[in-house]
Amino acid sequence: MFENAELGSSLTKPEYKKAVGRLRVELLEAQHRLAASDRSLVVIIGGVEGGGKSEFANALLAWLDARGIETHALGEPTDEERDHPYFWRFWRRLPASRRAGIFLTSWYTRPIVDRVFKDTDEAEFDQDLDRIVEFERMLCQEKTVLVKLWLHISKKEQAKRLKALEKDEDTSWRVTKLDWKYHKKYARFRKVSEHALIKTSTGEAPWRVIDSQDHRYRDVTAARVILEALTSGLDEAKKASGDRKPDRPKPAAKNVIRALDMSLSLSEDKFESRYEDLRNRLGFLTRELRRKRRSLILAFEGPDAAGKGGAIRRLTKSMDARLYRVNSVAAPSDEERAHPYLWRFWRALPRLGTVTIYDRTWYGRVLVERIEGFATAPEWKRAFAEINAFEKQLSDYGTTLLKFWIAISADEQLRRFKSRQTTPYKQYKITEEDWRNREKWNAYEAAACEMVEKTSTDHAPWVLIEGNDKRWARIRIMETVVERLEKELA
Amino acid sequence: MFENAELGSSLTKPEYKKAVGRLRVELLEAQHRLAASDRSLVVIIGGVEGGGKSEFANALLAWLDARGIETHALGEPTDEERDHPYFWRFWRRLPASRRAGIFLTSWYTRPIVDRVFKDTDEAEFDQDLDRIVEFERMLCQEKTVLVKLWLHISKKEQAKRLKALEKDEDTSWRVTKLDWKYHKKYARFRKVSEHALIKTSTGEAPWRVIDSQDHRYRDVTAARVILEALTSGLDEAKKASGDRKPDRPKPAAKNVIRALDMSLSLSEDKFESRYEDLRNRLGFLTRELRRKRRSLILAFEGPDAAGKGGAIRRLTKSMDARLYRVNSVAAPSDEERAHPYLWRFWRALPRLGTVTIYDRTWYGRVLVERIEGFATAPEWKRAFAEINAFEKQLSDYGTTLLKFWIAISADEQLRRFKSRQTTPYKQYKITEEDWRNREKWNAYEAAACEMVEKTSTDHAPWVLIEGNDKRWARIRIMETVVERLEKELA
Repeated sequence: MFENAELGSSLTKPEYKKAVGRLRVELLEAQHRLAASDRSLVVIIGGVEGGGKSEFANALLAWLDARGIETHALGEPTDEERDHPYFWRFWRRLPASRRAGIFLTSWYTRPIVDRVFKDTDEAEFDQDLDRIVEFERMLCQEKTVLVKLWLHISKKEQAKRLKALEKDEDTSWRVTKLDWKYHKKYARFRKVSEHALIKTSTGEAPWRVIDSQDHRYRDVTAARVILEALTSGLDEAKKASGDRKPDRPKPAAKNVIRALDMSLSLSEDKFESRYEDLRNRLGFLTRELRRKRRSLILAFEGPDAAGKGGAIRRLTKSMDARLYRVNSVAAPSDEERAHPYLWRFWRALPRLGTVTIYDRTWYGRVLVERIEGFATAPEWKRAFAEINAFEKQLSDYGTTLLKFWIAISADEQLRRFKSRQTTPYKQYKITEEDWRNREKWNAYEAAACEMVEKTSTDHAPWVLIEGNDKRWARIRIMETVVERLEKELA
Repeated sequence: MFENAELGSSLTKPEYKKAVGRLRVELLEAQHRLAASDRSLVVIIGGVEGGGKSEFANALLAWLDARGIETHALGEPTDEERDHPYFWRFWRRLPASRRAGIFLTSWYTRPIVDRVFKDTDEAEFDQDLDRIVEFERMLCQEKTVLVKLWLHISKKEQAKRLKALEKDEDTSWRVTKLDWKYHKKYARFRKVSEHALIKTSTGEAPWRVIDSQDHRYRDVTAARVILEALTSGLDEAKKASGDRKPDRPKPAAKNVIRALDMSLSLSEDKFESRYEDLRNRLGFLTRELRRKRRSLILAFEGPDAAGKGGAIRRLTKSMDARLYRVNSVAAPSDEERAHPYLWRFWRALPRLGTVTIYDRTWYGRVLVERIEGFATAPEWKRAFAEINAFEKQLSDYGTTLLKFWIAISADEQLRRFKSRQTTPYKQYKITEEDWRNREKWNAYEAAACEMVEKTSTDHAPWVLIEGNDKRWARIRIMETVVERLEKELA
């Protein structure tokens, strides 16, 4: 894989000058096209120490319009980052559409270093790489032009570079013990990197290895790769016409929602005694969560007026206000719209030791966005896999995740709508839109059934709740949360 | 100040029930009005331990629609927070317009605790409080309804509460050694708090001390205070009509900008030798910044085509790409618009050890927003003081801040505009708007002079640069940065 990059390709000064003159104009034009598009550009600059990652980034920033570009060279994760899953620190730095991000440290850095020093075994390393492939596929499908450059130099060249840097008093600070430690492991780095590059060179996001012995050749070649990727990415963007049309799936006569026994109910007495007990247990468990530095995510979906808000209030009443947050999902802001779909949810993830409750969730993609035609068919179809990958990351990180679908019958919904219209402090809850959604009852039900089928997993199960009787629903939800937590925290 | 809150006010259960019934409806209505306005609501709940801050927050959350409210109970600052000025952790949590934030820990917490335990002296405490007054004035003027509640109980009552909590196995976890330590200092807490409350009870943001011995009285009274403040805040919002009209100040014949000698220039030879030297020194200094964990902010303003971008590129060429960020200020996003004006700049502040360069800055408020009428007259008029307070905080935190106004003559601008139109890779830089702005040259110049007069301070000086000769300007800027850093890091 690296052989081609050790052939000693180089450019003379005049060749370089000529190439750069043209390149700058073309790069600026491409960047200008980017700024007028709905795409973003992500450039990963990888490679061994001494390959000139930082130098190339500087050259690129001088050639492009620095406005609209951010460079990321991450050191040790901050404690906020450590309190979130691994990819969080990258999600929070993803460029918005029309902008570019250059990553000198990327999602590859830790997996490769961990494997070089055998902190992970081969299987774990492959898992890390699988997650990267999933992440990058999502990026590319969510309108990111992703360019992956590997600046390669030979072991001999690396030693030469490090020595030269050490000698010069202006640059000696850049060479640390760690660099020499890494240099000794050059062969192992090469082997591990090769495996990573091969496994993650996909059709949509291939690696480009750049011979970096000669800095002029390196800068011009790497910049050309970016230019080509950006140009063709923007050309494709022009062609791709997302057909956003409402989808109207038909519900099966037999489905998990219709199979629910909607007559289930609970008397007030029974409710009170069970509620008191569950409330105490839940209060204790959320404090345990904090003590053990675990986090809990509760996700709520269901038709309008299914009782999500009431159930959430019942839950939070038993929690210390310091330990939970209710996230109500409304229309995304323009910053959220300018990022991949899941960005707004990553952004709101709980820190370790706390509870986040989502009143409506990322499943909007396969429910309202599907039915109303806010998402294209390819977008909502691939969302199932994207969501599963997202939830797997949460669960691998130690987050307990429960998803509730509160079901009510169409008749019950009608009754509640009417009651809302006549209760003064509930009127704000009922809008024209609710009545319109009601007309699409069957389509929503079918979409929900498909969602449950495709995204209910052992680590992030959907729990279907019979919601016609509010007392029954609230107790069932609390029971489920309490039992799950008792099991997980035992 | 606390005497009235020790009279043992209370409500019977029936009184409470009756009051709450009405209160809930009114609170929900007010919240609904808030959600349709351009205001945000910030509630600070202060008071001694045992006063029931968390209980009241829970009650409030149950009465209101929890969607649209966030509760903040902050523990120790995270390392990202420690790497920013004190108020950063609050800025980042300010609710957007139409939303509410409840702060169980607020900007008062640390100053009061520090003073109680004598980590600060009286003068420092007063400084802390002054900064709070400034911050809150800004909040109120920037469309925040601010409610400050102090839940008060007597020392005797506090002891009783702590003992009761300790006895109950469900709540004993809440009482820590720290609580008893604080209890012993009750008298001192009371004295310090009283001073804080008196000094920060302003017309726009008064404190309301609530007798909290009886939880029913406490919850109803505190909620009513919030309701009243919210209602009258929203009524005023309706009346206040911001007259956003363009301002056309006339420039004085003698002013700091016209006094510049625009004939100053530098030959290419001189430029090269000086540049080489400055570049090396600056490279060293930015590494020193990192080593000493100090940060640097460079702010650039000036007419279109003054050469801000080129000067910035010259500066960054000598910095490691890992250590700096260029922040180009364009139109705000909708999230930014939904927060106080300075929010977007707080958001982008550098962490310790790094450099942030702003290509256009918070001074947009008193330049483009003033001249084009994007800000009302009261808004841009008070911006001078807000900006001075902001920059003082940065400098007190140890940030080195330099502000450059690159001046060019109107003729020189015309020459550059024309050259941009004919150079392929510069065409994107010139727009219709640039030509329109040019017509307001005199107004912009006068606004800039007023800005320099009102915001050039010893700790955050404006440096006026003669910009007709690009080489001269670039060297002057680098020299200024290098000399300042050498002085500060010595």
